[in-house]
Amino acid sequence: MPAEVPAPRIVTLTTDFGAGSGYVAEMKGRILHARVPVVLVDIAHDVPAHDVRAAAWLVGQACPAFPQGTLHIIVVDPGVGTRRRLLWVRAGGHEYLAPDNVSPESGVLTRVLAATPAEAVRELTVPAGASTTFHGRDVLAPAAVALLDGVSPDTLGAAVTDLVTIAPPLPRQTAAGLAGEIVHVDTFGNLLTNLPADQWPRLVAAGRLCVGGREVGRLVRTYGDAAPGTVVALVGSQGVIEVAVVQGRADVTLAAGVGTEVLVP
Amino acid sequence: MPAEVPAPRIVTLTTDFGAGSGYVAEMKGRILHARVPVVLVDIAHDVPAHDVRAAAWLVGQACPAFPQGTLHIIVVDPGVGTRRRLLWVRAGGHEYLAPDNVSPESGVLTRVLAATPAEAVRELTVPAGASTTFHGRDVLAPAAVALLDGVSPDTLGAAVTDLVTIAPPLPRQTAAGLAGEIVHVDTFGNLLTNLPADQWPRLVAAGRLCVGGREVGRLVRTYGDAAPGTVVALVGSQGVIEVAVVQGRADVTLAAGVGTEVLVP
Amino acid sequence: MPAEVPAPRIVTLTTDFGAGSGYVAEMKGRILHARVPVVLVDIAHDVPAHDVRAAAWLVGQACPAFPQGTLHIIVVDPGVGTRRRLLWVRAGGHEYLAPDNVSPESGVLTRVLAATPAEAVRELTVPAGASTTFHGRDVLAPAAVALLDGVSPDTLGAAVTDLVTIAPPLPRQTAAGLAGEIVHVDTFGNLLTNLPADQWPRLVAAGRLCVGGREVGRLVRTYGDAAPGTVVALVGSQGVIEVAVVQGRADVTLAAGVGTEVLVP
Repeated sequence: MPAEVPAPRIVTLTTDFGAGSGYVAEMKGRILHARVPVVLVDIAHDVPAHDVRAAAWLVGQACPAFPQGTLHIIVVDPGVGTRRRLLWVRAGGHEYLAPDNVSPESGVLTRVLAATPAEAVRELTVPAGASTTFHGRDVLAPAAVALLDGVSPDTLGAAVTDLVTIAPPLPRQTAAGLAGEIVHVDTFGNLLTNLPADQWPRLVAAGRLCVGGREVGRLVRTYGDAAPGTVVALVGSQGVIEVAVVQGRADVTLAAGVGTEVLVP
Repeated sequence: MPAEVPAPRIVTLTTDFGAGSGYVAEMKGRILHARVPVVLVDIAHDVPAHDVRAAAWLVGQACPAFPQGTLHIIVVDPGVGTRRRLLWVRAGGHEYLAPDNVSPESGVLTRVLAATPAEAVRELTVPAGASTTFHGRDVLAPAAVALLDGVSPDTLGAAVTDLVTIAPPLPRQTAAGLAGEIVHVDTFGNLLTNLPADQWPRLVAAGRLCVGGREVGRLVRTYGDAAPGTVVALVGSQGVIEVAVVQGRADVTLAAGVGTEVLVP
Repeated sequence: MPAEVPAPRIVTLTTDFGAGSGYVAEMKGRILHARVPVVLVDIAHDVPAHDVRAAAWLVGQACPAFPQGTLHIIVVDPGVGTRRRLLWVRAGGHEYLAPDNVSPESGVLTRVLAATPAEAVRELTVPAGASTTFHGRDVLAPAAVALLDGVSPDTLGAAVTDLVTIAPPLPRQTAAGLAGEIVHVDTFGNLLTNLPADQWPRLVAAGRLCVGGREVGRLVRTYGDAAPGTVVALVGSQGVIEVAVVQGRADVTLAAGVGTEVLVP
């Protein structure tokens, strides 16, 4: 038996189920029926319930950090059991299994597909007997097992050619200055904007930016460059301009959140 | 060395320790002393402290989803260090290590053993030097290592022949109708009843059910079949009738929880 | 390919990022670029933000439970991007990658190095292009991959000979008795003191101890030896004297926390 063990495959999971819900474990149990060894990695299970936009951020942040060949399963699915499609997507050497919850705001793959276009897309066939409320367990997990066991993606369902992807919000040039918005609040309360790092020189020239009308004038290289409690702006680890409170929470101090306007005058 | 690596074994963990407590990690560290590669899967560590009934639900929901041969370790153990027994149980092709915390209400294996009777049971011998307060680390983890390394379960301790298992609460036929109860509230606030899916036609004929005296008349196939905020009943993914609020929390809206009466008139 | 799969390596992670933050997953994605199979184990990601002392406790509790050869990565790093060093440390057959956040109170390796002196220490070279705010991803994870892939630690950076480690607080003999303090509150609300288990006979002789001025007179062998709600003292699983409330929370009942004085008269 030892000589037959193949190299392990990496599978990530992103859901709004809650880590200890039992639903995550049901999915893992099914996925581990694959004959190949699997390394399961939790990206997040505490995505706010039904918050497709928050999931899209996490997927865009974390999935590309994994090695090529990783299979990512995302289940934030307010439309479970309705006519929304379930998809297999190959992009940038990674595979994704996720609901096609395209909405006026975003789908869970919005950010990842904005960075790396889809190379192939299939609509998963829903197996007979699948529940109407838990397609993560009854459609995505079996598809994952099939893929891990070497089944061709072509057999999972029909090719999709009309996938709609929506670009994340871009900053706009306005009379008042460069206008962007907060697109993510991290666990430290740091406010991540959609102003890319290459706008830093412009911010330095302006000397300040405004977050929801509150002015932030302390521009630093890293959090530790100012005293605890100081409101600072910096280029963070996600390649965008961030606003933070040193060893504090900028979301609380500035009463700001996703969607709050950011302006570089 | 490569050619000597055997196939990995799956080990699940269910505790009330808290995911970041250090106690979970201590157990994992011990388990990973096994010579066989181990895939560790967390089922839940945020079971409410000492809540044997909640743990029994999760174990019954999640453990059977794993492949045969999986070893499940459960540590929700208000009686740690007292005379309650620690057990090894084989049932349905799975192995379980858990305290025998049978109580007037339930033990952690209640639901799983109601579905699949125990084939073999042993009482674990408590090793000399074990702490009196952390038998998960000092008794269950060493037993797991022994089992993973191929030791016969017969050597773990004496055979148990008087295992008491308690059937989960069953619905009753009353003058007012079919009476059941809420047996689990999931992370979305959905209320899972003990009315099995095969009672759905009866519910459809009645046209409504009552949860703690509140009437629910909207019967649907899946959550997305009604507008956000609607209170609905449906057959959920766990094979029982559920009451939910679409994209909301039924436990809050209906002020209901485990034990709340459910009636199909 | 099967015959080329080497034995897996264990890597643990302790951070204050929050389990579902995306930052943890970014680190895991990078670490899994190692060519050797890796078993990732989360020790904790919900360490209070920037709380080096809490992290030091967890690291001291959990890391030594793992097999020799385990690589432990700790990222609780209020000084990220400043001149504090990032270290590779070998101690007791384990390897550690962590910031050298020595402070008046403690660094994250304080407790583990108090138990097992460092055998070798290197200061990690920060790669060109590393962010200034996420050295876990940009410095520690690449160092982990290098180590897992067999690179000599000597190539990671210069040898460190001036590592400062601070002994955890020790109990003191005072006129009023043996004075210690609460050094950790666990997830159950149990209060762990710095009074070692070998002081138990002295406590038994005194018949009581005081926690922040509140007297605790019920000395037991394990939690289940007293009725729910009773305040008890016992020798717990961490080798120190603990104060607990049976099936309750001692931190709440006694209004005590880390730093609260403990006195055996």
